[in-house]
Amino acid sequence: MAEVHGRRRNALRRLLDDRSLDALLVTNLLNVRYLTGFTGSNAALLVTRDNAIFCTDGRYETSAQSQVPDLQRVIERDCALALAARAKGRTGFESDHVTVDGLQALTEAATAGLHAELHKAPGLTAELRIVKDETEIEALRMACAAADRALAALIEHGGLRPGRTEREVARALDDGMRDQGAEGPAFATIVAAGEHSAIPHHEPTDAQLKTGDLVKMDFGALVDGYHSDMTRVVVLGPAADWQTELYALVAASQAAGRKALKPGATFAEVDDAARSVIAAAGRSEQFMHGLGHGVGLEIHEAPALSRAGTGTLAAGMAVTVEPGVYVPGQGGVRIEDTLIVREGAPELLTLTTKELVVV
Amino acid sequence: MAEVHGRRRNALRRLLDDRSLDALLVTNLLNVRYLTGFTGSNAALLVTRDNAIFCTDGRYETSAQSQVPDLQRVIERDCALALAARAKGRTGFESDHVTVDGLQALTEAATAGLHAELHKAPGLTAELRIVKDETEIEALRMACAAADRALAALIEHGGLRPGRTEREVARALDDGMRDQGAEGPAFATIVAAGEHSAIPHHEPTDAQLKTGDLVKMDFGALVDGYHSDMTRVVVLGPAADWQTELYALVAASQAAGRKALKPGATFAEVDDAARSVIAAAGRSEQFMHGLGHGVGLEIHEAPALSRAGTGTLAAGMAVTVEPGVYVPGQGGVRIEDTLIVREGAPELLTLTTKELVVV
Repeated sequence: MAEVHGRRRNALRRLLDDRSLDALLVTNLLNVRYLTGFTGSNAALLVTRDNAIFCTDGRYETSAQSQVPDLQRVIERDCALALAARAKGRTGFESDHVTVDGLQALTEAATAGLHAELHKAPGLTAELRIVKDETEIEALRMACAAADRALAALIEHGGLRPGRTEREVARALDDGMRDQGAEGPAFATIVAAGEHSAIPHHEPTDAQLKTGDLVKMDFGALVDGYHSDMTRVVVLGPAADWQTELYALVAASQAAGRKALKPGATFAEVDDAARSVIAAAGRSEQFMHGLGHGVGLEIHEAPALSRAGTGTLAAGMAVTVEPGVYVPGQGGVRIEDTLIVREGAPELLTLTTKELVVV
Repeated sequence: MAEVHGRRRNALRRLLDDRSLDALLVTNLLNVRYLTGFTGSNAALLVTRDNAIFCTDGRYETSAQSQVPDLQRVIERDCALALAARAKGRTGFESDHVTVDGLQALTEAATAGLHAELHKAPGLTAELRIVKDETEIEALRMACAAADRALAALIEHGGLRPGRTEREVARALDDGMRDQGAEGPAFATIVAAGEHSAIPHHEPTDAQLKTGDLVKMDFGALVDGYHSDMTRVVVLGPAADWQTELYALVAASQAAGRKALKPGATFAEVDDAARSVIAAAGRSEQFMHGLGHGVGLEIHEAPALSRAGTGTLAAGMAVTVEPGVYVPGQGGVRIEDTLIVREGAPELLTLTTKELVVV
């Protein structure tokens, strides 16, 4: 694994060159993980043109020896300050992560140390992270597979039936993902039955599933730090006409969104491809969120596939496509996949059927 | 519940008075939760002298109606900017949370809006949060009880035995806490057997427990957003002399630390009370972390009970006391409780025995 992290640090060095920086002080822990493989809860990294210094505290000294064997290691409690004191020349800092108070302390440390000049350098590692390498895609694939299998097991074992509570179903999905080797759920699992399905982000309650309910499940698994994200809706017992129609509308919108996922498409175009299907049915106001988002070391990361999103897709981006239509007091449908943008058609990672499942 | 949040906002207003601020823009989501009860993943709050405006995005509009019924609500995607535009007069911002780039955007929004002047105001809500009210202590009590019962169930059902892996034991503790009503573990559960117990923060592996092993378990439960934290060490089979001695030393240090928990004691004094016991045994270098930390809406929050900690204890603070001695290549012991500082003796929330349990 050291090799992949070395490649990422070299890619970062090319961005430093572009910005005439001598070094970057990486304090966002996820960026440190991306660039080193370190999984502990306190660390920072100073990437220079020809070297990298890693810092963590005493609790992680032993883990760091095995996870980051190839880098010079410093053991200190306040990692950002320890590395600021060791920085030289034009040193970028993550101005989208360092707080206002944090910058003051960093500046003092850099001045008292080897006299680095600090410069705002937001988003450099994010620029790399937005396009996934194959190591990352494999982790996402495993995370999506764990979620797929957890849902299959739930349905197969009769876990979706009248009388079970939303909370019980959520717990069963979470346990199922762990049974499939996931570290845990990627975020707080949403299970919303009946009228609750009209709430986009509903927290599971002790409400029982009833015959005739739409049951919306939005969940994902965490594998090697990577997050999958999937939403499926099933109906308990025969579907009513309004349910079938609502489902078909969202499915058509979601298919249009997936089809629009091509390198070079703008984020707003992709959003529009799905949104216009819902708008044509006169339901624009019942789809009040963006179409999708990037996934990776965070459950929500760049790119934002929304009307306001600026930028274009590139091969290797990992995104969700998740239109929804929510009818207050009645019910809602959201259908969501995690996909990798590829030349030609996108690679679908969440493989559970998108036909309306009647259980 | 609305009442307790109103009381907290009034306490915050007294701090605004002290600092001659007309308002505080609260962007740290945990502070928003503390001051309103809102549990979603995107929100901000503007607390003025006689009012409070809450903002979240469309996904949470319905939840906000029920969780924050008493406040004026704004629905926008970028909550911090939406509220900055609505701020007037001398408005504090959380400079220990707002990033350098974030401040630039806030300043633009405040200027384009009602012309608030932004002032650094770090730590105001933290100043309130460091002393817990009875609502919070009750949540911590339940979180500690869930962890206690999960460990009791694990031992009672023979869950600690040679051949089980660290990962299996961690999973059983996590499941046990959920069975007891916890939302989940408060942090990634540590189970470290044999030599691994000498690693302060070890991630559970597929290594099997063996007869003669010390098994160190550091875990906690999450209840209503509050985190418990506890470490216990058991030995599989008869304890060797070195294990008994090591355990007795750490237990004596931990008891000294608990005894020092009194309103008015400095954080460094409490650390020293426990550390000096270990130092007297010539093992200072094998206790390489602080004595403890505050717990609440975060697993690590103020105060820091360490040599470097500055400040004094007050009744109502919730802290851990967790000395450890780690002998590389051999094994380690840490004993940790969560307690509430009270007049007289502290209130112990983690009630599992601290005698060396031989299983």
